[in-house]
Order: sequence, then structure tokens, then C-alpha cells
Amino acid sequence: MASPLTPREKDFPRWYQDVITQAELADNGPVRGTMVIRPWGYAIWERMQAELDARIKNAGAENAYFPLFIPESYLKREAEHVEGFSPELAVVTYGGGKRLEEPVVVRPTSETVINSFFGKWIQSYRDLPLLINQWANVVRWELRPRLFLRTSEFLWQEGHTAHASEEDARKYALRILGEVYVSTMEEVLSIPVLTGHKTARERFAGAIRTWTCEAMMGDGKALQMGTSHELGQNFAKAFGIQFTSEAGSLEYAWQTSWGVSTRLVGALIMCHGDDAGLRLPPALAPVQVVVLLVRDEEGVRRAAESIANDLSVAGWRVRLDDRVDISFGRRSVEWELKGVPVRVEVGPRDLAEGRVTLVRRDVQDKRPVALAGVAGEVGEELGEAQRRLFSEAEERRDARTTRVGSLGEAVAAAADGFAVLSWDAIGLEGEQELAAEGVSVRCLQREDGSLASSDDEPGLQAVVARAY
Amino acid sequence: MASPLTPREKDFPRWYQDVITQAELADNGPVRGTMVIRPWGYAIWERMQAELDARIKNAGAENAYFPLFIPESYLKREAEHVEGFSPELAVVTYGGGKRLEEPVVVRPTSETVINSFFGKWIQSYRDLPLLINQWANVVRWELRPRLFLRTSEFLWQEGHTAHASEEDARKYALRILGEVYVSTMEEVLSIPVLTGHKTARERFAGAIRTWTCEAMMGDGKALQMGTSHELGQNFAKAFGIQFTSEAGSLEYAWQTSWGVSTRLVGALIMCHGDDAGLRLPPALAPVQVVVLLVRDEEGVRRAAESIANDLSVAGWRVRLDDRVDISFGRRSVEWELKGVPVRVEVGPRDLAEGRVTLVRRDVQDKRPVALAGVAGEVGEELGEAQRRLFSEAEERRDARTTRVGSLGEAVAAAADGFAVLSWDAIGLEGEQELAAEGVSVRCLQREDGSLASSDDEPGLQAVVARAY
Repeated sequence: MASPLTPREKDFPRWYQDVITQAELADNGPVRGTMVIRPWGYAIWERMQAELDARIKNAGAENAYFPLFIPESYLKREAEHVEGFSPELAVVTYGGGKRLEEPVVVRPTSETVINSFFGKWIQSYRDLPLLINQWANVVRWELRPRLFLRTSEFLWQEGHTAHASEEDARKYALRILGEVYVSTMEEVLSIPVLTGHKTARERFAGAIRTWTCEAMMGDGKALQMGTSHELGQNFAKAFGIQFTSEAGSLEYAWQTSWGVSTRLVGALIMCHGDDAGLRLPPALAPVQVVVLLVRDEEGVRRAAESIANDLSVAGWRVRLDDRVDISFGRRSVEWELKGVPVRVEVGPRDLAEGRVTLVRRDVQDKRPVALAGVAGEVGEELGEAQRRLFSEAEERRDARTTRVGSLGEAVAAAADGFAVLSWDAIGLEGEQELAAEGVSVRCLQREDGSLASSDDEPGLQAVVARAY
Repeated sequence: MASPLTPREKDFPRWYQDVITQAELADNGPVRGTMVIRPWGYAIWERMQAELDARIKNAGAENAYFPLFIPESYLKREAEHVEGFSPELAVVTYGGGKRLEEPVVVRPTSETVINSFFGKWIQSYRDLPLLINQWANVVRWELRPRLFLRTSEFLWQEGHTAHASEEDARKYALRILGEVYVSTMEEVLSIPVLTGHKTARERFAGAIRTWTCEAMMGDGKALQMGTSHELGQNFAKAFGIQFTSEAGSLEYAWQTSWGVSTRLVGALIMCHGDDAGLRLPPALAPVQVVVLLVRDEEGVRRAAESIANDLSVAGWRVRLDDRVDISFGRRSVEWELKGVPVRVEVGPRDLAEGRVTLVRRDVQDKRPVALAGVAGEVGEELGEAQRRLFSEAEERRDARTTRVGSLGEAVAAAADGFAVLSWDAIGLEGEQELAAEGVSVRCLQREDGSLASSDDEPGLQAVVARAY
């Protein structure tokens, strides 16, 4: 049965939209730019949440919840912050049937409201570090919406922390970057990421430094996967977050904030998807193995149920597809579209020979397996698929990354990949020239790819690309 | 150390507020009626979510996410629904710096937007039942806010389902009531609940029948803990949810919706709290056992760590409190306020005799336990505390429930408890008279407490009370 998707080579954005529709991941909401996340898309997001949440808690942060509505006046307290977010705000002017005296803003991010409480809760160095995370929806009015990538409302986690010293704050921002974000992206999502810091132009509104994870999508464009910001004392001064130090002096706290969002689902599609649909890395997949009952004959159903049960007992996330009123071909295409890593097909002919058919989604490889060894074989294939998706993405990125010497070469290389050049060869003016060509500096890093210790560190390289 | 709380007998509402503040559960947000859920309060909510979510998935529903913003016109499609919710709406009139052509409403509940998608997704009886749940924030502008009980924004889950027949819809609404709600409330939260259906006056706006769980709080008032609605075909007709039946005819779907919210945290406080603070049932508690290091002397810390480790290996949720720079008394009061079910106090004097002190929060019982037997003893005490909180709440409810024969007696009995009388003795007019006295019919049920099969069933009894 032919795939119902536009081929990637022909029209990548349309292929992306086709995957979302055909794999039943999401729909457009009735209000422009909003999104309905359908059960399969949401199950993927729930798995991401679980992996991120465990790592966030492991890094010592506690979950909490702050209000959706923020007084307009709060937004204005940090000058760069309000300038950055004003054009994207949704504003509530009526509540309970009456015009509000002060309009309230629907949170675009929660620095202002959370830090107003940090100001109350923090008195002494003993209250530090204060490490808070929240899972929430935020709203940024979007003029060019695209499902998962840019939506007017999206789901995310936002971490907010306060520390006694700049060094502590930086260490924590980097700990989140590595132990939470890179770890989840590379080990669970199987997406290789570059890390570095943003230029002043690309920095979060109100931050003194933004650390970022950047990945290459299937069309060679870059996607910002997540960011971790050092806020310095900007918000602490705007919201009066002061503490008595161990030495007895009154000091402003040093802060961080960091977030990843449902955008990660978009990244997953565009990094691993192929012309048959989504390909889910096993460590993430809500269903790792689907056991397909080919035909409902005596003995066949029992075998399928028994295999599904064995796999489940072995600790895998398993679904039994026994919808025999739908054709086998149609069901196979559905699971391919949805990206389930391994299919076990259980039919009467195979079974008569004491075997089943095992299909790997990532390589579309099909082979017979003896009944007795199914659980072991499935486990090996899942491990192999997890590694292979990562190395495939890494090889593509390496093949499409070009080291260049000039802005012109950088723009040319960014047509279908990443360009790497000396940050000295770009500078603020060069960055503007690149922007005019639709190209941006994704991050700055040392030549070996490691993180710089300061913005002024000599010899930094810039990774340059077109971006989503 | 004395409890910092107002005694319940003196002023129950103030005691409630004191517990929330002192146990660091929540704060008022800057916009009137909104709430900040602090880490301890949120950890309790996360545990409720986990227990509910597992049961919801077990009942076959899948999680999804629908937009926060709903076009104003959608709300108007179901007449009773819009009438019910209009006075509570928050309305966004500006987005992205411009006045919106059509104002959008911040969801007060999602029947309208979800059912507009059900209309697209449902074609045939094969698409039914469609069982969807979402975890989300909703906004209902609140004039008399009270933390957790009535807030302008609250967190909840809302289930929405479509079925091929009225019977299927009713069965599912009742399955959720029993297998998800009553099960979580009684087995996890240790709160005994009465079930029944609402009178027409108290029904959800747009439903044909509302099933409810009602519990008695520490002051004898009732709290509605959760509701499960049969929507009939009201929304199906408003949103065109039609399917081709097995016989080939075109039919409107039969629907349900159901929800519980952060209000459950309020119920937990008011049902189990005492003058020393919160008392958490062990099955729910984010921390079931806290191991308190009394003083940091050689050997004592090692013993405390080892006990915490053993308890953790035994499968309990454990916290080690080794903050010896804070006085032991102050830390004990803190854990009492926060309601952790069992404390294990590890100090040098006890340890010299080969034992530790075990404290049960619910009964404030303190006893020495031999080091070797700690894990076993803790397990028994946790089981005992779980049962005891339930029976204590049940005994209070029984003691404060009066069977009466007239409206006047019902009002008198509702001063500090529940009244039960024949529904025939009340009727629509009687319900209005009760309302004038601040008393309402919480639910209708059979005399044995079981659920009625229809509204007209003769001999129903009404449970009547003052309510939160």
C-alpha cells in the first residue's frame, strides 16, 4: 500500500504537514495559531515530559504552578523583557462580565510573576539556591504559525532559579543544559545536538547569556531545541530579590531560567521522519512494539496475545493490534505512519512453521524469527534502532556541515546545511548581513565544539544556518 | 513547640487558611482569585494526578490537549451551557498588539471546542466510543475566591466521550464515577464519599444528568469532590456529531463529560487536617516517611542514612531531613504541619540503646522501635494510618448525619452536618426554600445509598447540607 505522504525531496514543509495529519498527531485549533494535540501526539509529549521531569527533579528542582494571568504592570518592570514580548501578548480586558481596571496579560513566560514571589520567599542565603520548575501552557501570538514549531499557545516546562553567586547560577544553567536537555535529546530522542551560547542579537529578552541546543533537521535547516539562560541580576533588581549573605551583607540574587516545549515534537518529526512517516526512537516511543494479528484464526490470536504478554512482562511498551476488520495492509501503513519502532506480525502461515515476522520501522527490514526467541530479538532490534537513528542523524549533520571562510560562503553553505566559521569573521555587522539572507548564527562555541567560558574568549567559532 | 495555627473549633475558615500558609501549600496570585501552588501543594496534586491518570487510562480514555482559547461564537451554540458560564468568562480582546475581530474566551471548560473536533473525527459507529481526557487549566472568574476551593484559574482533568447509545454513555459516566473517582477518593485520599445524582437545579449547564461524589469536611459542611455528566445528545446536536450506525442510519452521538480539580487538595485539608496541620493519607503522601537526624554526631548520621535507604529500597517515598542547623523542634513542627504520615527520629541517646523513635502523624503516637525492625514497623504504621483516617472521617460523617422529616429540621441539622430526607418532601419549591437558608441538595440516591436508575424513581432520598 503506497504512502499517503508527499515525498520529502519534493516538498519538505508539505511532507511535515502530511505526517502530522496522517499520523494523527495534531490539528489546527479554531483560533488562529492554536493547536489541538491528538492522542498519539500527546502520548509522545507525555513520554518527553516523563523523561525531562525525572531529570529536572534529579537536578534538585521542585515543581510548582504559577498563575496564567499576569498584571500588565509586572511585564513592564524589566525593560528588555517587555520590549521582547510586547508584540506577542494576548490581553484579557473583560472578566466576569466587567471591564477590568487593569488589563491582564496571558503569560508568554513566567519570569515576572515567579520572580515577584521569589522576592517574598527569599530572605537569607539559607533560602538559596531556590530551584523551581513549572509545566504549563504559554501564549505568544503567532503571525506565521506552524504546528508544534510555532503556535500561539504551546506547552512547555519553564525552570526558574535563584542563587547566591554568579558562579553558582552559571553552573546550574549549564547543569540543566547538559544533564537535562542534552541527555534527553540525545539519549531518548536520539537527536544529536550542538551546544553553545547565543549572540547578543539572539539572546532571550532579559538574559545576560543564553545557552542553547541546536539540531539539524532532515532538510538541513537548524532547529533551536531548548535554551538555558543566565539572567544575571536583571530580574532580581526589577523584583527586589535580595538576601542576607553569610557575611551579613544584603545582596541581589543571581538567576537562571530554562525551557523546552512541544516544539520538541516538531523536531522529532523533522529529524527522524521519512517518506513512510514518523520514526520514533524506542527509548521515547509510547508504543515500542506493536503485535499485529494478521488473521483471526484459531491459535493465531492466542499466539499473538501470548507474544504481547511476554514482551510486556519483559518491560517493553506493547500494543496488540487485533482489529482484523481492518485490512492488514492498512494497519501496517498506519503503524508505519505512527512510527512504532518494531512490528511483530503474527499470521497463520508463519505460525505453522513456528515463527513470526519481525519488522524494523527505521530500516524497513523484515525477517522471520522463531517463536521462542521473539522477546530477545525484539530487545536487540530496539537497542539497534535507538543507536541507528542517532548515527543516521549525526552522519547527515556531519555530511552537511561545511567549514567556510567568508560570509558569502556561509550563506551558500546554509542553503542546505550548517556553515562553521570564525566568529571574528562575522561580528555584529556580519550578523546583520546574514540575517538579510535569512541566515542566523545558531550558536558560538570553541573550535572543538565545547562551551566558551566568556563572550570575549578569543578564537570562537560560529555555527550558522537557516532556522525554523 | 506550639502550633502556629488558629484552632479549628475557634475559626474553621481561618484555620484552613493558616494550614495553607504554614504548610506552604499555596499563595494568592497577583490577579484577584488566582493561586500560586507552592512545591508541597503541587507535589500533593502531582500524586493525585498520577493516581487519577492511571485509572483514567485503565478505563480506556486517552489524553489529548485542546486550545486554551475558544471563539466566543462556539460558547453560544449550546443554549444552557452559555447561560451557565457567561457570568464567569475571561475574554481576550487584544492579540499580537491588535484588537481581535472576534473576541476569544479563555476556556471555562472545553465541551464546545472538543465537541467541534468530535464532529470532524466521528463518522461511523466504528469510531465509537471515542474516549478523550485532558489535563489543563481553566478559568472561571470568581468573586469570592478561596484557595483550592474556588479560584479564578484552577487545574483539572476533563474527560469527554462519545458513544453509540444512551445506555453506553450512562455506563461509562458511572464507570468513571466509580472506578476513577470514588476509587481514588476513598482508597488513596482516604475520604469517604456519598454518590448520587444532582437535582435539575444543581446540574451541569448542558447536561441531562450529573452524577456526583460528595464528602463531609471537618466542620460538617459538604464539598462536591467531582462530577460525571451524561450530556445526552445536547452537544452532539449543537456541534453536529453524527455517525452512521451499524444498521446504516445517521444518528447523533450520546456523550459524557467528567472532571475533578485542584479542589481535591482543599478537600484533603478540610477532611483530614487537625490543629497541628495537614494529615496526609500514606497512599497519597509525596513523602510517606521522613527520617529526622536529631543531632549530627558520629554514627548517628550514618544510621539515619542507612534507615532512609532501607525504607526507600522497601518501596516507600522517603525524605532524609539532616538540616541540623535548624532546631529539631522546629523541624518536627514543620513535618507535622506538612502532614507526613510517619516520622523516624534518629538521635544519639536512642541509638545507644539500639533503637529509634517512631511517630505517627495521624494519632500523634510516639514509641521506641528496635533498629532492626524499623522498615517492617513503618510499613505497618502506614497501613494503619491509611485505614484510620478513613474510618475517622466515616465515623464523623455518620455521627453528624441526621435523618429528618421536614425542611425545617433539615435546615437545623445542616447547621453542622448532613440531613437526609425524602426527596418527595422537598421538591422544586422546597429546594428553593432550602437555598434561601444557604442549604442545598447535595445529591439524590436510593435509601440504601445506591444510585437511582432514573430521576422519576420513587422513594429517593436527598442528602442536604451547607456546601463549599
